[in-house]
Amino acid sequence: MPSLAISLDDVRDAAERLRGVANRTPVHTSRTLNMLSGREVWLKCENFQRGGSFKFRGAYNAISRLGPAQRARGVVAFSSGNHAQGVALAAQLLGVPAVICMPDDAPPVKLAATRGYGAEVQIFERATVDRDSFARAIAEERGMTVIPPYDHPQIIAGQGTVALELLEQVDVLDALVIPVGGGGLIGGCAVAAKGLRPEIRIFGVETEGADDVRQSLERGERVTIAPPATVADGIRTTAPGHLTFPIIQQLVEQVLVVSDAAVLDALRFILLRLKLVAEPTGAVGLAAVLGGLLPPECRRVGVVLCGGNSDPMLLARLWEG
Amino acid sequence: MPSLAISLDDVRDAAERLRGVANRTPVHTSRTLNMLSGREVWLKCENFQRGGSFKFRGAYNAISRLGPAQRARGVVAFSSGNHAQGVALAAQLLGVPAVICMPDDAPPVKLAATRGYGAEVQIFERATVDRDSFARAIAEERGMTVIPPYDHPQIIAGQGTVALELLEQVDVLDALVIPVGGGGLIGGCAVAAKGLRPEIRIFGVETEGADDVRQSLERGERVTIAPPATVADGIRTTAPGHLTFPIIQQLVEQVLVVSDAAVLDALRFILLRLKLVAEPTGAVGLAAVLGGLLPPECRRVGVVLCGGNSDPMLLARLWEG
Repeated sequence: MPSLAISLDDVRDAAERLRGVANRTPVHTSRTLNMLSGREVWLKCENFQRGGSFKFRGAYNAISRLGPAQRARGVVAFSSGNHAQGVALAAQLLGVPAVICMPDDAPPVKLAATRGYGAEVQIFERATVDRDSFARAIAEERGMTVIPPYDHPQIIAGQGTVALELLEQVDVLDALVIPVGGGGLIGGCAVAAKGLRPEIRIFGVETEGADDVRQSLERGERVTIAPPATVADGIRTTAPGHLTFPIIQQLVEQVLVVSDAAVLDALRFILLRLKLVAEPTGAVGLAAVLGGLLPPECRRVGVVLCGGNSDPMLLARLWEG
Repeated sequence: MPSLAISLDDVRDAAERLRGVANRTPVHTSRTLNMLSGREVWLKCENFQRGGSFKFRGAYNAISRLGPAQRARGVVAFSSGNHAQGVALAAQLLGVPAVICMPDDAPPVKLAATRGYGAEVQIFERATVDRDSFARAIAEERGMTVIPPYDHPQIIAGQGTVALELLEQVDVLDALVIPVGGGGLIGGCAVAAKGLRPEIRIFGVETEGADDVRQSLERGERVTIAPPATVADGIRTTAPGHLTFPIIQQLVEQVLVVSDAAVLDALRFILLRLKLVAEPTGAVGLAAVLGGLLPPECRRVGVVLCGGNSDPMLLARLWEG
């Protein structure tokens, strides 16, 4: 087996860095959810993480390791979503200047939130400009360090602290169910969970049309798909990462696929019955559990509710028709 | 001073009854909230209580004390809101038949939720029928016991367990801030909190036009107002209770008044920043804190977020215009 980008010790190191900085997010349970799913379910509530999603963990872990000269010059990230807020907040706490490159169609609330954390926002035209080159040009010009959204050992290790905490909080889990975008969250969590308890089973979840990782596993190599249009905007990646894919190949049992409709049903359940605010991507794992997609012998299941930064307009539209 | 309807020991007895049955609800904090309010705030999250609000506590405490004959004949309650669900759920858990009298304009989701807990729903015409007489007629006809929404010692004692728990969870509070409808919640909480820590200061909160308790305190006697139209539908009572008013007179320092607009602002903050689903009444306490209505020397404040059963249509309308 090829050696993986990170080990359990890297996740433990990340947890040390995050102690007293990241929130130790709570775990919620629901009798109704257990009844409906026919399993015992524990929800790891990263919607209560600083910045509104797990992304803060990886960003802080990565930025906190920069040397004094790198810190002084600052960091660049490209994201219209939670990574932007995670990097902006982590940089602010560490006193590091941050430039966030966001597409010209990013929602105004996300722009405002990112600026609210003190970051400089650089807008690029999504239709004509490659975001990667745009960010790298800024990084080069200013001597800044790029903080990528998932394909980076310290990002993966930081996200893995979600599972490290969850297994400390609940020590009876048969399986973990985790949304899959670029693979940073599931990669880190898989290394942490399998390192602590080799018999635990790890399931990823993607949405229909956004199943680049499922296709990649099937093909045995990284597959790139067209930009997907799923409602789960946190997992609209087109390919798994160079570092994350080998971890997923080795440690993740299966990537399940749910429909956008199932995600929105799960999101309504989370809001109305669990009284938690999630974003659509945060409901992806629960959609798989409520859809009965897990093997029947997985009785005690940890589900990562990965974020809560829902666009209010989307919350409003949930109740139409 | 007149003797009060309940004592701290009654609240402790209720807590014993509720152990392992009611949820010990979590307490949430937020750096943003502390910064905005200029205080340290702890939110007691009764939106995570069974049935979606604190009402389950009092209902279960009261129904669990009925003798075998009373239990066999069952209970009646009138409510279009959280008390209906609290009584229905408590009765179901105790194997007691329950009739819930609801007005003909009650939202279909509330009817469905109440029936979902196994209760029989009796609809009355709100415009022409007195709900109290309607419920009492059913109780008499079938030999059932009426479970009133607030003016009952075991209901008040049950609701007081909210403060008992909160003071166990957070032992540094200067003040409690609690929404006031009929006074069951604030009455029970005031007895519990003042019993445990006599120097703690208790503030009630009502909305404009629904300030029957504030007026009653000012007048020194129970004042009845016209049915108020506030968005905080959980506190649309027209007068404090016979049992709750003397408790409020003796133990509550002041009843603050907030506007509906402030409640909706606080509700949006709870949803977007705290990632919690609350109902408007659940946001009333926070509205007072965010509005700066507390004396400046109250630095460490416990706020009861009393329920989360928001009408989805109201959540949708929050983002209009």
